[in-house]
Amino acid sequence: MRHLLDTRTLSRDDALLILDTAEDMAATQQREMKKLPTLRGKSVVNLFFEDSTRTRISFEAAAKRLSADVINFSAKGSSVSKGESLKDTAQTLQAIGADGVIIRHPASGAASRLASSGWIEAGVLNAGDGMHEHPTQALLDAFTMRRRLHGAASRGKGLDGVSVVIIGDIAHSRVARSNLWLLIALGAQVSLVAPETLLPFGVRDWPVSIYHSLDEALRVENPDVVMMLRIQTERMHAAFFPNEREYARNWGFDDRRLQTLSERAIVMHPGPMNRGLEISSGAADSPRSTVLEQVANGVSVRMACLYLLLSGERTEG
Amino acid sequence: MRHLLDTRTLSRDDALLILDTAEDMAATQQREMKKLPTLRGKSVVNLFFEDSTRTRISFEAAAKRLSADVINFSAKGSSVSKGESLKDTAQTLQAIGADGVIIRHPASGAASRLASSGWIEAGVLNAGDGMHEHPTQALLDAFTMRRRLHGAASRGKGLDGVSVVIIGDIAHSRVARSNLWLLIALGAQVSLVAPETLLPFGVRDWPVSIYHSLDEALRVENPDVVMMLRIQTERMHAAFFPNEREYARNWGFDDRRLQTLSERAIVMHPGPMNRGLEISSGAADSPRSTVLEQVANGVSVRMACLYLLLSGERTEG
Amino acid sequence: MRHLLDTRTLSRDDALLILDTAEDMAATQQREMKKLPTLRGKSVVNLFFEDSTRTRISFEAAAKRLSADVINFSAKGSSVSKGESLKDTAQTLQAIGADGVIIRHPASGAASRLASSGWIEAGVLNAGDGMHEHPTQALLDAFTMRRRLHGAASRGKGLDGVSVVIIGDIAHSRVARSNLWLLIALGAQVSLVAPETLLPFGVRDWPVSIYHSLDEALRVENPDVVMMLRIQTERMHAAFFPNEREYARNWGFDDRRLQTLSERAIVMHPGPMNRGLEISSGAADSPRSTVLEQVANGVSVRMACLYLLLSGERTEG
Repeated sequence: MRHLLDTRTLSRDDALLILDTAEDMAATQQREMKKLPTLRGKSVVNLFFEDSTRTRISFEAAAKRLSADVINFSAKGSSVSKGESLKDTAQTLQAIGADGVIIRHPASGAASRLASSGWIEAGVLNAGDGMHEHPTQALLDAFTMRRRLHGAASRGKGLDGVSVVIIGDIAHSRVARSNLWLLIALGAQVSLVAPETLLPFGVRDWPVSIYHSLDEALRVENPDVVMMLRIQTERMHAAFFPNEREYARNWGFDDRRLQTLSERAIVMHPGPMNRGLEISSGAADSPRSTVLEQVANGVSVRMACLYLLLSGERTEG
Repeated sequence: MRHLLDTRTLSRDDALLILDTAEDMAATQQREMKKLPTLRGKSVVNLFFEDSTRTRISFEAAAKRLSADVINFSAKGSSVSKGESLKDTAQTLQAIGADGVIIRHPASGAASRLASSGWIEAGVLNAGDGMHEHPTQALLDAFTMRRRLHGAASRGKGLDGVSVVIIGDIAHSRVARSNLWLLIALGAQVSLVAPETLLPFGVRDWPVSIYHSLDEALRVENPDVVMMLRIQTERMHAAFFPNEREYARNWGFDDRRLQTLSERAIVMHPGPMNRGLEISSGAADSPRSTVLEQVANGVSVRMACLYLLLSGERTEG
Repeated sequence: MRHLLDTRTLSRDDALLILDTAEDMAATQQREMKKLPTLRGKSVVNLFFEDSTRTRISFEAAAKRLSADVINFSAKGSSVSKGESLKDTAQTLQAIGADGVIIRHPASGAASRLASSGWIEAGVLNAGDGMHEHPTQALLDAFTMRRRLHGAASRGKGLDGVSVVIIGDIAHSRVARSNLWLLIALGAQVSLVAPETLLPFGVRDWPVSIYHSLDEALRVENPDVVMMLRIQTERMHAAFFPNEREYARNWGFDDRRLQTLSERAIVMHPGPMNRGLEISSGAADSPRSTVLEQVANGVSVRMACLYLLLSGERTEG
């Protein structure tokens, strides 16, 4: 792989390669081999135009475990203009010999622009671009599903036939978009549950089922995976809910709904959670919840992506 | 040791273990062995909810000299709410496999809460929590006293019979609190000197002498150690001093008071100093002043703490 | 070398030593030896009182390639007062055992003050001080000129007889000042082109030619090197230009002027460029432009400076 820009164009084979490599990475960590020499002498730049300490340190830990040098570049708050500065910045990164650039940017398409610009030779890893994609989040989610649903025998497997229900602010969520495309590539069946105002334009052309009632979705789909999204309060109001209680009653995954799940079903959330709003504490802390595993798996998946992009076995494409 | 949260519960034996280990660390530095392989492959996170560049880089230098990987996490300015975010953050740190977390937080008890929460397995090192404690500052102060008063023969020794006078804003100072408990554990006699308004509630239950007159304290105690605290201007006013000159005249350690000290006595300040306010330049720059040694000793003491917490010889408790 | 504070006092021999060492550094990079063990165990602090991510990461990459530990210290935005804080900070850096300090500061003379203060033993490297100097920028510019004009045979050579025209806001530019003194030491002939209002006081005592007309300068000097400076819009107005078009017409290096250059001439800019203002896109992107090489050469030159200051072969002076 040359870059990781989205999951929409990621083939099933490449997705499985990443997930299986992440299994290898997780295995080395469990054997207390905290530091692998794999990327010694490689430079990785965290190029963050948006604040996200959690994502940044997950990538930083992943890179350092592979013995890469990490340079943090926080562009937030600086007066860089959008267009010129990305080019200037890219050229600086090229000049200092960056092997990998992890970019987070408020503009959709920024990662793709950086990769296709010709400004740099480094591998580009999208850590979230506007409302477009956040592919490593989707990959760590798929990794988590595979481990929970297939157990030790998950290597090489996709998510064929797995029913995933994604609930919340689909319209503004790059997490939802990246998950959607990856899940479809891996063979899952995806349902979206949201008020009409929080569904994206054009959603009816996507290969998904759509529900406006959470209870109906749970009853009809009998999901293996319930994935909550984080709600922004201002968007809750845009969805015409007067208050949090009202929102939670309609769209929150609460203790009552938790009871309706099948035995093997799991509950996911990318964090940080608004407890009592989109998810109840009962659901968040239940054995079905994978919230902490998702964060831990994030390091393994990001190690896998960095390894595949930067370990010298890069092929064009 | 599992965590270092305060000095109030630190035993004399553990305190001496830290101080003696710091002597070893200082010795390796003097032999130009700048980098020890001791913590290779370990990850240390600087989790700073308050700005303190001086403390942060002292810990960062200590960790890097022990070959640990360091990840800086500055939470200041982010909109994290106090309760949930500390848990979310802790879980992220657990997920990335942090071996040690150095936490500075405006809320008293934050370090203890992190250590006892069950959220993380990492060793927790308190780098200042509200007005509660700042144990490594007290340990580096004790280390400095021991070296100055006992010289080369200090290893294994406490501060038995040493008379320490602490002057200034005791009420709001975590440095004063951490010093107080540690000094008592090490056998020193502690006197506090402050206007009534800058003494903490309950101070008369502490095993210390209290003075409202600096000159009287110096005359009666004939101290081996004079420890000034940094005054915040707004608190000077809270102590009913109309201006800096008035405060300096009553509570400042000036050239005249410097003359009254016994031959072996030393003058300490945690820095940065308000010259002309709580300390005169004559006192700050005299051979009795240990201000620069305190900063240098800070790295040795922090190396010792990180080593004892993270080197694999951790015992529960 | 002990410190690198300016180019005004840099001898031709020392300048050539830096440039030749930078050739060695560039050669190791081309052989994919990304990481040299040269400065293993040394600590380098990036002490930035002004934001400059580009310069900071160039130095950070240079130090890491030499295997030094890097500690970033961003003082911007903190409420440190100018005088006391530089001393406090310096003492902290001394205490943590910093071997090299790279300082950027808004006050002219800050680097020199730090080096001569006696506060620290570390080598001091000026990364820009007020409107005074920015020596590594000049060194990377000279390195770029030498490589372009002399090619593979540049080692050991100066810039004797090379004609350099520097255009723009000379008065406020530390880049112009550092270039001027270095170029003269290396034997180049320097011409300055600016409106009178953007020339510094006392410029007529400098060993340079002065022009108020860019076209005349290009015709008379027939330069080997055209060096544009970055214009700040507010200073464009101070130069009595009502708008950008007017400024560009008089002082911008545009496509028409590009045509007048001799065959071997090159066009330089320290970046980031204001395209259409001080330089046209045609000039910026032409094969004569060295803008990207300048950034890349910056890492080699900074590696050379760090190596010469910190590798243990330091001599006093």
